[in-house]
Amino acid sequence: MISKNMKKLVENSSAIRAMFEEGAQLAKIYGAENVYDFSLGNPNVAAPESIKEAVIDVITNDDPLMLHGYMSNAGYEDVRNAIADSINRRFDTNFDASNIIMTVGAAGGLNVILKTLVDPGDTVLTFAPFFAEYINYVNNANGTLEAVPPVLENFMPDMDKFEQMIKPSTKAVIINNPNNPSGVVYPAEVIEKIAEILDKKQKEYGTSIYLISDEPYRELAYDGVEVPYLTKYYKNTVVGYSYSKSLSLPGDRIGYLVIPSEVDDYEEVFEGASVANRVLGFVNAPSLMQRVVAKCCDEKTDIDFYDGNRKILYNALQEYGFTCVKPQGAFYLFIKSPVADEREFCAAAKKHNVLLVQGRSFGCEGYVRLSYCVSRDTVVNSLPAFKALAEEYGLIK
Amino acid sequence: MISKNMKKLVENSSAIRAMFEEGAQLAKIYGAENVYDFSLGNPNVAAPESIKEAVIDVITNDDPLMLHGYMSNAGYEDVRNAIADSINRRFDTNFDASNIIMTVGAAGGLNVILKTLVDPGDTVLTFAPFFAEYINYVNNANGTLEAVPPVLENFMPDMDKFEQMIKPSTKAVIINNPNNPSGVVYPAEVIEKIAEILDKKQKEYGTSIYLISDEPYRELAYDGVEVPYLTKYYKNTVVGYSYSKSLSLPGDRIGYLVIPSEVDDYEEVFEGASVANRVLGFVNAPSLMQRVVAKCCDEKTDIDFYDGNRKILYNALQEYGFTCVKPQGAFYLFIKSPVADEREFCAAAKKHNVLLVQGRSFGCEGYVRLSYCVSRDTVVNSLPAFKALAEEYGLIK
Repeated sequence: MISKNMKKLVENSSAIRAMFEEGAQLAKIYGAENVYDFSLGNPNVAAPESIKEAVIDVITNDDPLMLHGYMSNAGYEDVRNAIADSINRRFDTNFDASNIIMTVGAAGGLNVILKTLVDPGDTVLTFAPFFAEYINYVNNANGTLEAVPPVLENFMPDMDKFEQMIKPSTKAVIINNPNNPSGVVYPAEVIEKIAEILDKKQKEYGTSIYLISDEPYRELAYDGVEVPYLTKYYKNTVVGYSYSKSLSLPGDRIGYLVIPSEVDDYEEVFEGASVANRVLGFVNAPSLMQRVVAKCCDEKTDIDFYDGNRKILYNALQEYGFTCVKPQGAFYLFIKSPVADEREFCAAAKKHNVLLVQGRSFGCEGYVRLSYCVSRDTVVNSLPAFKALAEEYGLIK
Repeated sequence: MISKNMKKLVENSSAIRAMFEEGAQLAKIYGAENVYDFSLGNPNVAAPESIKEAVIDVITNDDPLMLHGYMSNAGYEDVRNAIADSINRRFDTNFDASNIIMTVGAAGGLNVILKTLVDPGDTVLTFAPFFAEYINYVNNANGTLEAVPPVLENFMPDMDKFEQMIKPSTKAVIINNPNNPSGVVYPAEVIEKIAEILDKKQKEYGTSIYLISDEPYRELAYDGVEVPYLTKYYKNTVVGYSYSKSLSLPGDRIGYLVIPSEVDDYEEVFEGASVANRVLGFVNAPSLMQRVVAKCCDEKTDIDFYDGNRKILYNALQEYGFTCVKPQGAFYLFIKSPVADEREFCAAAKKHNVLLVQGRSFGCEGYVRLSYCVSRDTVVNSLPAFKALAEEYGLIK
């Protein structure tokens, strides 16, 4: 009796839940410390102490009618100014409150901007491998998501295919930088090429194509690599951000959209996004948390911890003979499956109590995703299992 | 360049904003204390002190990885149990965590359950006058909202019309009790009649018709009137609740759905709603606030304050000759316009610095809504303006 669309989604979701339940089952049999669950993208570094201080500050000192009250659907103006200032300081941009809409995480922000832009029948492109929820978010706006395949050597977008896939109905392109699940950071020259192609196609079709940059992993970049700020490369860019990873606040659902003044039809897009925040039922980003992140927006999580996990795993996997593009961002490794059907490899890994996610869940068969936002013990203790897997598949040289 | 649907919504929203801006303009000219703004439904009683204590408690004592982390899309199990227990204590029901889904306010909850149930082309009914956002929420799920007209003497649903309007495509009926904007409370005998009609129609069509009870005003009931708990009257009831009014936390976006075990296809509906929470981009209700409301779910706001405003305004309006159904819930009065076109009356009121909302915004022409969630001074000082309006229209006997 539920809707047909939801019925399909529930079936899918049951498959994922089944995997988690198997993991829980393994933990029961072998003990949690002997199960290496690399399946979830849930930060395991605690929120910085400054979050606690900010919460106590606002609950003690702010007027409760303001702190817990409705504000403009775009969010508190002073909060939006504080966040704009922080972006300006860090990325040499020139935003103010009129460019920021506070959202219920990045997921809320993406739904808001897609609802604002997409007409039924429009297409939205993204670059594979990609976060599978994009399919649902685009469907919510009655559009269709299409994925541009990657160049498998480096997991950068296949630019020829990208150019061919842009149609007059292409309303937006979603890019996720650093990328979940590949862990790669798209460098300036890749962004420049994307911008060049989009500019050309906009001119050719006489349309506006918005580049939506989904950036929950922006602060998780290693080896000193620069994550380009996309509004500086392409005029019609909208940035979606979340404090889920940078401040370890995924459950609190707090993020924002940046809508630069120079995007086509800026006033309509900004006002549309404010209205979308309301009509989609978000109404506004959680008020108390808006005031908290405004006080902590220059803070960072403990990146060194994730970097340590990354190095141990990447080096070990290389040593054992696995193929894996070097990840410079987020907290994921995207490993080539030693057999064509990566579901077979996931099943083999499970026999060693190692839980990985199949690449087809990210639009990329033949690969598996490993999330290294886990304890150091899990990382270190899992290595013999990976070595055994490498031996099983004859990878060790 | 924004979507056609959003373009219409933005135009609408600009009209409402224009009204607010006019109000701000009036405040500038005459002083805020001389403008009687009855247009907004924003609680003006501060959150109880126990909210502050609960926030400090959880931020001080809870593990930050748990407090700010992801949990099941349905919400923390212990929070859902605490809320189920509170409902059971107060309404003699028998729920547990498996019947509760924590949501981003009632607006989030309504979108979640509509996305779960509604297929494109389905219709959803509601009872006029009604909260206009229902139109958008049903549209988000690609359904169509139709409003059952009221009996104007008492603003109860016209039961004959209701029965006639139910079709095989009717997937759900939204009821808002106490009602915004009329302020009436639908009593047990009205609910029984609704249930009887729905049962009959379900049998006739062989369908399931879900009754969605939107209850943000449940605790705001006066004169000792009982607000029936609808799951006890009709099997296929889903309740949507928000702490916006009862704990004055509208900005924090925290509420829940109750999905009783006895609804048709309970497991699919519950699992569908959890998945809808995720795919719509809510993901989960704000985590810290989930833990806070679990500690305060038996608290109430200062109802006596609203009741005081209600009595002063209702009695004065009666005395001046206005027609208005006696409001026993929420914080609204729905006044009959002394002229057929209530927009004319709104304009006349504005000349006395009184801001009211036109009834057609709630699907009911010829009436205006007055929100009395304002300071006592605003209420008392506005009375001469209402008296002058009554004299202008020859209402004073």
